[in-house]
Order: sequence, then structure tokens, then C-alpha cells
Amino acid sequence: MRISELSRSSGVAVATIKYYLREGLLHEGERTSATQARYDDSHLARLGLVRALLGVGGLSIAATKNVLAELDHPPESMHELLGSVTHQLVPEIKEELDLAEARTLVDELGWWFEPDHDDQLRPLAAALAGMRAAGFELSDLELINYGRAMHEIAADEVARVPTDSQEAAVRYVTLGIVLVEPLLLALRRLAQVDVSARRFEKGQATSG
Amino acid sequence: MRISELSRSSGVAVATIKYYLREGLLHEGERTSATQARYDDSHLARLGLVRALLGVGGLSIAATKNVLAELDHPPESMHELLGSVTHQLVPEIKEELDLAEARTLVDELGWWFEPDHDDQLRPLAAALAGMRAAGFELSDLELINYGRAMHEIAADEVARVPTDSQEAAVRYVTLGIVLVEPLLLALRRLAQVDVSARRFEKGQATSG
Repeated sequence: MRISELSRSSGVAVATIKYYLREGLLHEGERTSATQARYDDSHLARLGLVRALLGVGGLSIAATKNVLAELDHPPESMHELLGSVTHQLVPEIKEELDLAEARTLVDELGWWFEPDHDDQLRPLAAALAGMRAAGFELSDLELINYGRAMHEIAADEVARVPTDSQEAAVRYVTLGIVLVEPLLLALRRLAQVDVSARRFEKGQATSG
Repeated sequence: MRISELSRSSGVAVATIKYYLREGLLHEGERTSATQARYDDSHLARLGLVRALLGVGGLSIAATKNVLAELDHPPESMHELLGSVTHQLVPEIKEELDLAEARTLVDELGWWFEPDHDDQLRPLAAALAGMRAAGFELSDLELINYGRAMHEIAADEVARVPTDSQEAAVRYVTLGIVLVEPLLLALRRLAQVDVSARRFEKGQATSG
């Protein structure tokens, strides 16, 4: 199909498609003349993926490139893959962080942890530091409970990783990390609305 | 204390403190002369909160202002509070969204839902649409399981909302939504590392 048709089918403007091509987010089509190229279903599928990563996934252009590179050139072992994708997607945190508390929490949870990958602890350390700075601290038990709940979720997720093809596995892991995050946060907020409606009936005044 | 001391105690640069003052994120100090003002512990506490919301909370200046306004002028009922905070914090999603699938999922989960607040469904609808666009679809059962897991977490959270003072409740709810999100995501990723290390032993090649 021509670029105009690719635009119609995908709902992505021609100018945006050209931008993705320049940025390397979308692979070139097959040249049919000096000014025209032919695109196929692989371009349509990739456009959907790019839109999802940039949109609901909330990734930057740079992070999207990294994730796509991961999908196109997957690492050799599943373990390496998970570590690598996690590393790519870890939000960059520039501040100095004390990792001790995060390490202690992971130890208390009894989670296996790659000793050389301290940077994987940084998001947890940043979350804990942010709560402390805001004067919002959770007890050890509350932190452990959050950890256990997320571990149950992770166990289900990893159990579902397809093992029949590497491509399918990489795709599942990468998109599972990026696209399930907004899903979980959206569900948490709606669940809070439900629970609070049951606990604090509508219109009931708060005391104090 | 003077602004220089506030800067030292908080670790926030004087220029940044002045910026927060101009933006209304920090309340004015008590004027002691035409060019000087005195600050106290309330300014120190507010600075910690602002840093946490802008930093690990990932909020924009505008969203931070809204959250602070919520803290300073809380609504009358606990139920209204939760709805209002959730509304403030819902990421703005401009695209046209079909809410039917999100509504069906919430119905299947049996969650109470305020009929007039369709906008609260938008993040869930956006997450589902993003997964579909990327060709990453979860089964109904998987979605229900995610929902149930987040509901358990929400039930614990709402049970912990302090009811002795409105101020404490508002603070707990607001910060609990904003600051616990990065905590949950950080824990999920570390849990995935643990589970994958156990399932796919280090160095084991993926098939395919």
C-alpha cells in the first residue's frame, strides 16, 4: 500500500508516519520510485505498537527506540531479556540515592536479586525516598504486603510468558511491562472508588 | 529562618524556592523587611511535599498545584474527596475513547461506580485501547485477575485511611495515590526479576 493508504488504515497522519520513518521508529518501505515506497502489514502492525508505546505506555521517543531495538534484536537468554528490558524501561533517576533501605526490603521479601544490578533498585529507592520527603511513610509490614501482592501478580505474568518462540517471548515481556503498568494503575484507582464507596457511604461527612 | 537557611535545611536551591513561591506551590514567609522574609517548619514540610510530588510522583507543576489545593481546601465528604483527588490526578487523555469495554470490565468485577463520572473510566479505556493497538491483548480472565489483585490492595489502603481528622485523611488519600504508584511499579519489576530468575535459570537460552 502507499503511504496515504497506510495513513488511512492506521489513523496516523502522513506527516507523523514520515517523522517515525526519519526517527527510525518505523522501517522503510520498499522503494517503487524516487519519491514513492510501498508499505505492508508489517508497517501497519509496527505503527500500532509505536502509538501504544508513545501513548498509553508514556514512553519518550528515545525509550521507544530502545524498546523496539529490544524487540528487533532480542538477547540470548530469557533471564537476560527480562533484565535488559527492565533496565531500558527504568525511569532515569538522576538524584543521589541511598539504596540500603531498598536492598533491605528486597532481602526481607526473600527475592532473588542480581548483585551487580544495583541500578534496578533505584526506582524502589526513589519511591521510598519520595515518600519520606513528603512525610508519608509506610510501616515495614505495609511495604512487605505491597511487595507480596506485586509478587503474586508477577508470578502469574511470568507463568504466561510464551516459550515456543523467542520473538513471542520478547514481545510479551516488553509489552507486558510497558502496557500493563497503566492498566494496573487505572484498576487500582477504580478499585479505590469501589472500596471507598462501600466504606464511606456517599455524602457521609468526614469527621474532624 | 531566612531563605538561605531554608535552602540548606531542605536541600532545595534558593532560586528553586523562589520559583515555587512565584508559582504558588509554597506559601509566602512572614515579611521582616522589604527584601527579606522569615520561614518556618511549615515551609520546610511543604518543600518536602512539593519535591516528592514533582519528583517521584511525576506530577506536572499544574497537577502539583491542584493536589496542594486539595490538601489545603479539602472537600466535605470522604467520598467526594476520593473522587475529587482521583479526578485531579487522572492523566489527561485527549483522544476519543470507547468506554464500553472498560465499563463492562468494571461491571464484571462487580465494582460500584458513580454513573456520572464516566471520565474516571478513561484511564482504563486508554490502557485497554493501547494494548489492543499494540496487538497485546489479555483474556477476560487475565483482566479480571488483575482487577481482583488491585482490589485487594485498595481494600487494605482504604482501611488504613485515618478518620480522626479530615486533614490527615486528605493527606493520606492524596499522597497514597500519587506516591504509592511508583512504589508498586518498582516492586512489580523487582518481583518479575525474582520470579523469572526462578523460572528461567540464569543463562538458560530461550527456545525458538
